[in-house]
Amino acid sequence: MKKTILSGMRPTGRLHIGHYVGALENWVSLQGDYQNYHLVADLHVLTTTTTTTSIDAHTLEMVMDWIAAGIDPEKSPMFRQSQIKEHSELFLIFSMLITKARLERNPTLKEQVRDLEIDNMIYGHLGYPVLQAADILLYKGNLVPVGEDQLSHIEITREIARKFNQEFGPVFPEPEPKLTKFSRLPGLDGKAKMSKSLGNTIYLSDKPEDIAASLKKAVTDTSKIRKNDPGHPEVCTVFTYHQKFNPAETESIAADCRTGILGCVDCKKRCSAAISDFFAPVRERRAPYEANPGLVREILAEGETKARKVAAETMHQVHDAMKIG
Amino acid sequence: MKKTILSGMRPTGRLHIGHYVGALENWVSLQGDYQNYHLVADLHVLTTTTTTTSIDAHTLEMVMDWIAAGIDPEKSPMFRQSQIKEHSELFLIFSMLITKARLERNPTLKEQVRDLEIDNMIYGHLGYPVLQAADILLYKGNLVPVGEDQLSHIEITREIARKFNQEFGPVFPEPEPKLTKFSRLPGLDGKAKMSKSLGNTIYLSDKPEDIAASLKKAVTDTSKIRKNDPGHPEVCTVFTYHQKFNPAETESIAADCRTGILGCVDCKKRCSAAISDFFAPVRERRAPYEANPGLVREILAEGETKARKVAAETMHQVHDAMKIG
Repeated sequence: MKKTILSGMRPTGRLHIGHYVGALENWVSLQGDYQNYHLVADLHVLTTTTTTTSIDAHTLEMVMDWIAAGIDPEKSPMFRQSQIKEHSELFLIFSMLITKARLERNPTLKEQVRDLEIDNMIYGHLGYPVLQAADILLYKGNLVPVGEDQLSHIEITREIARKFNQEFGPVFPEPEPKLTKFSRLPGLDGKAKMSKSLGNTIYLSDKPEDIAASLKKAVTDTSKIRKNDPGHPEVCTVFTYHQKFNPAETESIAADCRTGILGCVDCKKRCSAAISDFFAPVRERRAPYEANPGLVREILAEGETKARKVAAETMHQVHDAMKIG
Repeated sequence: MKKTILSGMRPTGRLHIGHYVGALENWVSLQGDYQNYHLVADLHVLTTTTTTTSIDAHTLEMVMDWIAAGIDPEKSPMFRQSQIKEHSELFLIFSMLITKARLERNPTLKEQVRDLEIDNMIYGHLGYPVLQAADILLYKGNLVPVGEDQLSHIEITREIARKFNQEFGPVFPEPEPKLTKFSRLPGLDGKAKMSKSLGNTIYLSDKPEDIAASLKKAVTDTSKIRKNDPGHPEVCTVFTYHQKFNPAETESIAADCRTGILGCVDCKKRCSAAISDFFAPVRERRAPYEANPGLVREILAEGETKARKVAAETMHQVHDAMKIG
């Protein structure tokens, strides 16, 4: 039997090519060998904001991008956390199996508190790794794709699974981390990360002319001022894009940049053309859903029916083991 | 329209006459004027223990006592928290609307931590007032019967209702405390409270001969050593039982005790007879359910169907207001 992987994202709207490189590409490549479940973590949104008005629209845009990237709804159910009551049920039960102190020691939370300048932590925010554990274990996830910096997340999930199994009997697997090298694409402004809030992104859904316009603004080697100045590809944002999306030409571009034969304007044109080509199939797959977003709702509804069936069976086993109900 | 009251108990098994005086009698008296919902708080059990093996048996015994005490299943749905997924759903949403610090300030929790000598608080234990808020607001409870010492509980429920309504729109009432003078019956050993763990109880389901045997052990005025010594009813446990269950004879018993005409053995016999008579209708109503506990399961299943309908409608409004799903 195929091993199960659960992965998901908060619904943040249209995805950019950084999301593709950092996650979606990986999801698609795992699709053959594993049983994947993809979660729209719409309840997780509430841990850091009570503004929910955009969740629905953002969900549609994001799931459209998932499908466009190549997630096959037949193979990999896509579904909203808020529509599967069992996530909440398991969250409540798991919240009884871990101490407050353990959650307070969670290093990722400490980072968030620092980064978001949170001075009065929300109770549910403290518990978000408990909700994550419920998300994963509801589908008996065997593997969780994580980067090195996220190992602490899965440790809490493993502890909760172990605790439940000890107290009530063996229901859950102890999910293993599937260490994944997540590539990170720098933003158009040269910042380390593409981010909607920084406005330095190229969207998966961008048209070729949008991509060309965005590339024009991209930061390159700031010491290459005139067209024929020699450049340093290793410090150039556009060059990292060439490396990812234009591998065949990478070597010659590097050489021509260094010698000053290739100017930034031309280099950017070639880069935007390469990115456009790379994502042409994505745009093509996206088109029918853009024309009819109701199709995305149908895919979610089907995914939710499938997910609910698995979730209900797990909760049945949970209640049996706990002798409740 | 009748106002709604939610009240419940953790499933602790057979109830004693202290529960009757302290709560059940009140529930029954409210049954005509209010719409009552009675919750078996089986998930709350998990806040202080992971031993769940007795929950089912304890639930049956307790609900049998509820019915025996006079709760009418036609009027007042009785149901298990664990069987209505919406309790967990609303708990999760409410957990996003209150800070950790607010819950840590909860005086009842502080008391529990002291009394139960808890040195490593469970995350879900910290959140039990959030689960209580979900229990009450899922049925749009208007009133919550509380003693003076429990006003802090309902304050958290009111805060959460207010916060939800502010953020998402008016869905919930702000429940008012219904201040109730809860009588407290002392234990057979003279301790302030009847408690299963102290072994100082008379069960609602006790037969007349059990009651007589229990009364024989009851603590009276310790200065009344011989039968005809003058006694002090005001310090006598048995006299408090007379006051509650034998009001017609209370005055003459007090007088005869003080003058030494009435000895403790006779006084106890009259008391156990009075208690037996008082609870005769309760035992009578209990008999068919004792003979066939499946009837209790049917009543729970019916109560759960009714409760689930109300809960689902509330969650529908919650999701609508939050624009989720």
